Amino acid sequence: MSPGPNNAITDVPGISVGHVTGPDSGVTVVRAAGPNGQGVGGGFTQRGGSPVTRETDLMRPDNMVETMNAVVLSGGSSYGLAAAPGVMQCLENAGIGFSVGGGNVVPIVQAASTFDRATCSAPPASRPDYTSGLQACLAANSGPVAQGNVGAGTGAVAGGVKGGIGSASIVLPNGIIVGAIVAVNSEGVPYDDTGTLFGTTLEVGNEFRDLTKIGELIKYRVPASLPGGALRSGTNAVVATNVQLTKSQATKIAEIADDGVARAVNPAHTAGDSDTLFVLGTARLAMASLGDPNAVVTQIGTAAANAVSRAIVHAVLSARSTTCHKSYCDTFPLACRFRR
Amino acid sequence: MSPGPNNAITDVPGISVGHVTGPDSGVTVVRAAGPNGQGVGGGFTQRGGSPVTRETDLMRPDNMVETMNAVVLSGGSSYGLAAAPGVMQCLENAGIGFSVGGGNVVPIVQAASTFDRATCSAPPASRPDYTSGLQACLAANSGPVAQGNVGAGTGAVAGGVKGGIGSASIVLPNGIIVGAIVAVNSEGVPYDDTGTLFGTTLEVGNEFRDLTKIGELIKYRVPASLPGGALRSGTNAVVATNVQLTKSQATKIAEIADDGVARAVNPAHTAGDSDTLFVLGTARLAMASLGDPNAVVTQIGTAAANAVSRAIVHAVLSARSTTCHKSYCDTFPLACRFRR
Repeated sequence: MSPGPNNAITDVPGISVGHVTGPDSGVTVVRAAGPNGQGVGGGFTQRGGSPVTRETDLMRPDNMVETMNAVVLSGGSSYGLAAAPGVMQCLENAGIGFSVGGGNVVPIVQAASTFDRATCSAPPASRPDYTSGLQACLAANSGPVAQGNVGAGTGAVAGGVKGGIGSASIVLPNGIIVGAIVAVNSEGVPYDDTGTLFGTTLEVGNEFRDLTKIGELIKYRVPASLPGGALRSGTNAVVATNVQLTKSQATKIAEIADDGVARAVNPAHTAGDSDTLFVLGTARLAMASLGDPNAVVTQIGTAAANAVSRAIVHAVLSARSTTCHKSYCDTFPLACRFRR
Repeated sequence: MSPGPNNAITDVPGISVGHVTGPDSGVTVVRAAGPNGQGVGGGFTQRGGSPVTRETDLMRPDNMVETMNAVVLSGGSSYGLAAAPGVMQCLENAGIGFSVGGGNVVPIVQAASTFDRATCSAPPASRPDYTSGLQACLAANSGPVAQGNVGAGTGAVAGGVKGGIGSASIVLPNGIIVGAIVAVNSEGVPYDDTGTLFGTTLEVGNEFRDLTKIGELIKYRVPASLPGGALRSGTNAVVATNVQLTKSQATKIAEIADDGVARAVNPAHTAGDSDTLFVLGTARLAMASLGDPNAVVTQIGTAAANAVSRAIVHAVLSARSTTCHKSYCDTFPLACRFRR
């Protein structure tokens, strides 16, 4: 097993990602296209205590619409949901959406926002809006994914250090590809008392080989969680796979994949966290071709949870220091001394 | 027991309503202010199979934020959610919202939209947007509520006839006030095979006394449901009471109140219906002052369900014919011959 060529969610065929990075916050759009260019099956789980969401009720398996077109991750707390109508406009212009007759479509756009504040200005001078949603959607591509202080990770923190966007992927021997993208803005810390990042134990393909293991001596340097106070946080994520998924299957995968947050951040799913995770299946492989669906769902969920944990590590390692929040690598220079 | 002076949701202290009516669709904003001018406890239920919602996850009792500031009802299907950021702006400008420190607020704005198409243009020439949300919020007042082809009811249908906005209220002997506002855009029909409106059996204070009972002879005139096809519909509603409610209590009241849709429209909660119902408690009466909370919740829920049914009747009676959809009164002139 190894990561895909981008080690990012864009290794899943049909997935493209676009960021808009503002001075204080930003937007990350994950577009999903099935083989016909239209929507894909999806599901979600919502376990943080301070969610900011949109169109999640539609994703419940008992509700009618079966296909999703894009997920918006944003900063700006509830204000950041304003980006989603811009994404809808972008998709409608391309004729992408749930068909409602007469050639007209309604794009199905889920969103999860988080309360970011790494720039320390309160309120921030700028927020995600219609235009940033539109532009992030237009910028979406299937190449390498920019990580760190970009898009929905622009103003994010991760416990005591700077948070950000991270992504990861894995290719399984049976042809299943699983990718994840996270906007890490966690109340919890992503490292143990010695400064070692939790998620590094789930390394695939030596992706963390340039990190130096740090030991007991570093303990006194571990920063307290969340300077500025708790209850303003949340790690939102999107997982994708190339397997065709029903809403029920995607929902179960989301529930398994969400454990990837728990393994990489401690605590997770707090009262102040927005933590919401979406799953999308781009239907390049038929479930029936892969064996017992329940076993396949578990396999995808397991790979997805690990990809989420790894993506969180990538986010923290890619983040750069800002005026208010030092990056992990600036906080623990010993750990990062051989990093590029 | 009798309706309040407006026989509308604005009879509940702290509730104000504003409409913006566009050529094809519109927005209705229900603002809720507790005794301190800030948010109130709320809950929801979502039983239609095609929901279009925003910030509902936040309303779950296990999630942190306990107070809501406004609910947006809109047409325009998923596009209509674009009105909510305008409502947030209106409230933020007034300093209304969840306090996040430093004097800054995040207004908590739920929304439910419905797929309206009574104007027959597809796609409609206009949709609810940021500006209509902002203006509807600014227009909110506690006076009589315009009904029929206004706000979120502008482009609504009700089975075979024109739908719209309706409202109703009731004052209980113990001082509890309950009000409801509905945007009736139902796949189901609001009348039986003889054209009699289902909800009229729940009349309070002779509010339907000017309707003429019509009989068997009318049967052949009853129009087929939903000209233009099913699966593009949904009756969204807001219920309010002057009692202080926890999120759990408001959620249970929503579940009871939702039966008011079932009693006034048949079928309800179909695969194509958006049906989402919110409950808000403006906290002018303490729950503890009223007796056993479970009994009070049932009392409020019962009154609310009936108010919802009555509001649906008001909506259908207030609606006017458009190019594509005849009103109830134009379809059944015998029934309405003594109506003002």
